[in-house]
Amino acid sequence: LGNPQGTRRQAGTLRGHTPGIRPPFEEELVNLDAQWVVGFVDAEGCFFVGVHPHPEMAAGYQVLPELTVVQHERDVQVLHALKAFFECGAVRRNHADRYALRIRKLECLRGVTEFFERHPLKTKKRVDFHKFRKVLRMMEEGKHLTREGVREIVSIASRMNTGNRESLQRIAKDLEVG
Amino acid sequence: LGNPQGTRRQAGTLRGHTPGIRPPFEEELVNLDAQWVVGFVDAEGCFFVGVHPHPEMAAGYQVLPELTVVQHERDVQVLHALKAFFECGAVRRNHADRYALRIRKLECLRGVTEFFERHPLKTKKRVDFHKFRKVLRMMEEGKHLTREGVREIVSIASRMNTGNRESLQRIAKDLEVG
Repeated sequence: LGNPQGTRRQAGTLRGHTPGIRPPFEEELVNLDAQWVVGFVDAEGCFFVGVHPHPEMAAGYQVLPELTVVQHERDVQVLHALKAFFECGAVRRNHADRYALRIRKLECLRGVTEFFERHPLKTKKRVDFHKFRKVLRMMEEGKHLTREGVREIVSIASRMNTGNRESLQRIAKDLEVG
Repeated sequence: LGNPQGTRRQAGTLRGHTPGIRPPFEEELVNLDAQWVVGFVDAEGCFFVGVHPHPEMAAGYQVLPELTVVQHERDVQVLHALKAFFECGAVRRNHADRYALRIRKLECLRGVTEFFERHPLKTKKRVDFHKFRKVLRMMEEGKHLTREGVREIVSIASRMNTGNRESLQRIAKDLEVG
């Protein structure tokens, strides 16, 4: 795990408070089962396509897809375990007592989508995942660098459960007018 | 699944909105993988010990342990799949657009704890689970029927993440005084 000392200290503290109760040990978290990862991401994962104004991009917008998993700080070691599982991403404090694993690099997200193609999600999050994958494919084809491509991506992102619809609708309007 | 017609209708609607995107089919949800269940409950499960005033109980309180999983209505079929997996529980509307699977029967909860002993949780929820299991064992020994037993259960429940501490502290005070 990324922060073995921190994790060990936390586990020790926990043991101190709850005698006889064994907290999850690091070694159990190092090798996550694929189906455990599917179940956890089905529940806590967020496939998100961010679209941000960016004057240096030809289309005026930058497309930033990411997979995020947020946890209370008591379970930060689970995020490190997921990071190790996907061999990708960064674990950082999100806000207050929450930490987030974010996977953003395109080659990493390709690995993530290949994993969830082999091990399908079981909740309706699968529908978001398929839209997310479509955006990634469009990016691999360079479509996010054109105004028309960004318009199509914005249209897909706004039909995702995780989409910020208001913001995306403003962008869609901007791209129509221009 | 409990509501095959409803599920089928929902799937059809979904397909209509997202051509080419395959929603999770019933048959994939019928046989959940044990590790998927662990991952999902690690994320969304709640081991809860309710303690309620009950004039007909010798201790004046009734102890009601339960495992709850709440989902948005779009994923109600996942709750039915979990119910089928544990062969226990009831799926009902919780509030607004949320549904809950609740497992309350003691013989059902025994099966649940046996499952999570064989397939340990990986998050700190494991600590709550161990306290939950301790309460179940005390109930099997009839300790929840005595004032002293309820006091001990209240003390355990108030150290759980899911505990309503204020309410439990009031009960603890009441049991001390009497």
